[in-house]
Amino acid sequence: MFKLVLMRHGESQWNLENRFTGWTDVDLTEKGREEARKAGELLKAEGYDFDIAYTSVLRRAIHTLWIALDAMERMYLPVKNSWRLNERHYGALQGLNKAETAAKYGDEQVLIWRRAYAIPPMPLSPDDERWAGNDPRYASLKPEEIPATECLKDTVARVIPYWKEEIEPTIRSGKRVLIAAHGNSLRALIKYIDNISDEEIVHLNIPTARPIVYEFDDDMKPIRHYYLGNQAEIEAAMAAVAAQGKAKK
Amino acid sequence: MFKLVLMRHGESQWNLENRFTGWTDVDLTEKGREEARKAGELLKAEGYDFDIAYTSVLRRAIHTLWIALDAMERMYLPVKNSWRLNERHYGALQGLNKAETAAKYGDEQVLIWRRAYAIPPMPLSPDDERWAGNDPRYASLKPEEIPATECLKDTVARVIPYWKEEIEPTIRSGKRVLIAAHGNSLRALIKYIDNISDEEIVHLNIPTARPIVYEFDDDMKPIRHYYLGNQAEIEAAMAAVAAQGKAKK
Repeated sequence: MFKLVLMRHGESQWNLENRFTGWTDVDLTEKGREEARKAGELLKAEGYDFDIAYTSVLRRAIHTLWIALDAMERMYLPVKNSWRLNERHYGALQGLNKAETAAKYGDEQVLIWRRAYAIPPMPLSPDDERWAGNDPRYASLKPEEIPATECLKDTVARVIPYWKEEIEPTIRSGKRVLIAAHGNSLRALIKYIDNISDEEIVHLNIPTARPIVYEFDDDMKPIRHYYLGNQAEIEAAMAAVAAQGKAKK
Repeated sequence: MFKLVLMRHGESQWNLENRFTGWTDVDLTEKGREEARKAGELLKAEGYDFDIAYTSVLRRAIHTLWIALDAMERMYLPVKNSWRLNERHYGALQGLNKAETAAKYGDEQVLIWRRAYAIPPMPLSPDDERWAGNDPRYASLKPEEIPATECLKDTVARVIPYWKEEIEPTIRSGKRVLIAAHGNSLRALIKYIDNISDEEIVHLNIPTARPIVYEFDDDMKPIRHYYLGNQAEIEAAMAAVAAQGKAKK
């Protein structure tokens, strides 16, 4: 049997400000750092250990991982960073306040942008200062790999090759893997692992910095999954994620 | 031409307490964190950038690197950790106060343990709680690779294979390399790079968290090296390192 632990990053500055973040490289809040510390302490207390960790190239996920590794006293573990684990790219919505956007375009339109599986928001233009193509961390990407916007379907399309080519073989080799990533890159992964439909996946709400354990059989078929920690707290955190982006708060 | 940047970790708790540290996994002090931040800011201000970083498996070096990468906004770079970049193992001296040890055994004996190229301190026993063989980070080492004590000659013997097999080929491939390590693992590396004699190398004092730039020609022959930053400050820091371990402080 194999185990995998997934973790969404702790609260970021723009989670707090309720803004669409996507590939914008905002940092954790102090609360987000504390969440990451608690996640690491929980993993350690529950006897989890790892051989390798994966994360994105965005600092809120990297810092979540570093803080959790510190709390586990495993700061020396190998870490692999990939843009393929980045948050879903939010196109021209990046930087906009979710409630203001909902007030302007309506809850329904924002819910479509946030939750429709195959409808991306308006694209960023390559001459926009938010365009990722000028950032050195994406210098090795092919031009067609740099997103202008993404729906969840697009995120799935770039996360899953990394899972298949890199992470899954590592798990099969017997290594204990921790992934610290983002709401939508984890949704993409979970959709694939659990074969969740396009309609259902958009209702999956992943709370910040709560370790999710996936168990697989020897053929990497998923057996079950569960959140570590206080289950009532986790359900409340899921409900809070689902409530984001409504105009009236 | 190739460039390499070396950096000793910032002040650690046991630098502050003037104790022999070796493989003991003590953390940075707040001053050490600040030194690391300044080093990263200096590298960024001077236009240095990197493709990959190397460090040891000890937290004072790892944290120095993480803090410097944060200051450079390069926290997403690949980092490789190796026990071969660890500090020199100080055997049974690990944990003892340098000044007290000097008062007990004499300045001369301590200077021999600290600075003689081929004379190691008394070895640790495998049943000592300080023995590294029980630490999971060394689980992949062969039994004969786990040191009981080291003189600088022993440190050179385990650092240089990693340089030859991993770091030097990476530099030759055109990647810009940063190494965050320890006083004696860097001394070992510099001895090899600059072909410094056994007698001379023990007089080389490396200040904490001061970036050292090495320039190599296309055949990886060293051309020159220099510290970045205020040269008077660096000379004062070198003199302070040289003065450590004397009985009268």
